Amino acid sequence: MHGVRVVVAYDGAGFAGWQRQPGQRTVQSELEAAVAALAGADVRVRGASRTDSGVHALGQLAAFDSPRAIPPYKWLRGLNGKLPPDVAVRSAEACEAGYEPRFDARAKTYRYLLHLGPARDPLLRDRAWHLGPKRARPTGGRPTRTSDWLDLDAMRGAAAELLGTHDFRAFRSAHDPREQTVRTLWRADVIAHFGGREDVLAIEVRGDAFLHNMMRIIAGTLVEVGRGRRTARDVAASLASGARADAGETAPPGGLYLVEIERRSET
Amino acid sequence: MHGVRVVVAYDGAGFAGWQRQPGQRTVQSELEAAVAALAGADVRVRGASRTDSGVHALGQLAAFDSPRAIPPYKWLRGLNGKLPPDVAVRSAEACEAGYEPRFDARAKTYRYLLHLGPARDPLLRDRAWHLGPKRARPTGGRPTRTSDWLDLDAMRGAAAELLGTHDFRAFRSAHDPREQTVRTLWRADVIAHFGGREDVLAIEVRGDAFLHNMMRIIAGTLVEVGRGRRTARDVAASLASGARADAGETAPPGGLYLVEIERRSET
Repeated sequence: MHGVRVVVAYDGAGFAGWQRQPGQRTVQSELEAAVAALAGADVRVRGASRTDSGVHALGQLAAFDSPRAIPPYKWLRGLNGKLPPDVAVRSAEACEAGYEPRFDARAKTYRYLLHLGPARDPLLRDRAWHLGPKRARPTGGRPTRTSDWLDLDAMRGAAAELLGTHDFRAFRSAHDPREQTVRTLWRADVIAHFGGREDVLAIEVRGDAFLHNMMRIIAGTLVEVGRGRRTARDVAASLASGARADAGETAPPGGLYLVEIERRSET
Repeated sequence: MHGVRVVVAYDGAGFAGWQRQPGQRTVQSELEAAVAALAGADVRVRGASRTDSGVHALGQLAAFDSPRAIPPYKWLRGLNGKLPPDVAVRSAEACEAGYEPRFDARAKTYRYLLHLGPARDPLLRDRAWHLGPKRARPTGGRPTRTSDWLDLDAMRGAAAELLGTHDFRAFRSAHDPREQTVRTLWRADVIAHFGGREDVLAIEVRGDAFLHNMMRIIAGTLVEVGRGRRTARDVAASLASGARADAGETAPPGGLYLVEIERRSET
């Protein structure tokens, strides 16, 4: 068998998430169909992260074993020729057979996009969480200050409370069965004017691993802090209590992007 | 009658362009349906630019006359509540009845996005023209220099030839019936790392008016210059000859954005 490691990007809007599920359109099944067509055999594709329905990826890490030896650049072109327009392979390289991306993930970076504006943006639909101003403005004019929408300093203060090693059980969905809920975050930034747009804000978090819905609950909690409905102290208290009810709401999936997975095996 | 002026944004991918056409989904007809539902009567919506199928808008200018008096902020909320997710009203204000956006357009700004990468980007599908490297690179790695894709200096030199007042008949589709083909361009920029992305380039052009397909032919021509298949001198010669065959190919519609329309009536 010939191991192949790929970095995969997708628009999550048209997928019921990463993981293969009967009767659902998923990224894993689209990839498996494309790989099978080129390898001439059924092949299982292994991913590092099981992103949820509607969540996007710029840099999902995946791998598979092919019975047929095909050079990496031919995998890149061949898979992108077979895959539908909303998923693509960004790079391909040889790796050992049986390589397991999940165990090779050393750090993951997620980004959550917020759109601050009086009206929704059609080009950001399913791609950012649209938030109106804190107080309604009758004219529909552009914001003059981001603080009409969110208090960025308060959000940054609350984000700092999340840094380091904590039990994040308050920041996971009720469906997450994992026993081990201690995670380490190395970065939690609130970035104004993301992509050069005065009306877009990004929350970027880099950590060793993430519980189910953890990044979306972090985003929802920081938005509540930005709106003045919660404080940095409340965030610290939710980490201490471990109670889901003490953290904020789960932000919608369309604003979330799996940006990058760093590998242990990377030099 | 009560005149209402609106700025409209849309994702062009799902539309057969701006203009109402029998049996087609167009931006104008979606707007007219939403206005009619609120005004309680059939209302014609007038636009400043008839964008083609697949072309996006951030700031299309439009207007209509309503028999019912409704405050602008209620138009903004009401229309955005009725409109489908791929079109939205960004702002609304009162204007004189019978106001004609076409005649009030003093300047228009268009943007054309190019995506330079070894593989297509699912999140830029129908939103940027994907160009591979000038020479194939076997590994599918990221570009180290934009010049592996396009010669930006050459593109900027050719763009400068377009500035000022010229007969642009070489830069329009065969379907454009207009007699008057002299146009003035005040800006023609090639912007690297657009939106903070090293793999995205924007061509931004501001002019008094545009012929049919003019911006897409400008983009197609500048890309050929960037690829070394055409020079700034060739671009000047195409303006002089006025022959469509002397300009470059028409770039695909998905990369094009109507960014802004400046109004004569604006203070």
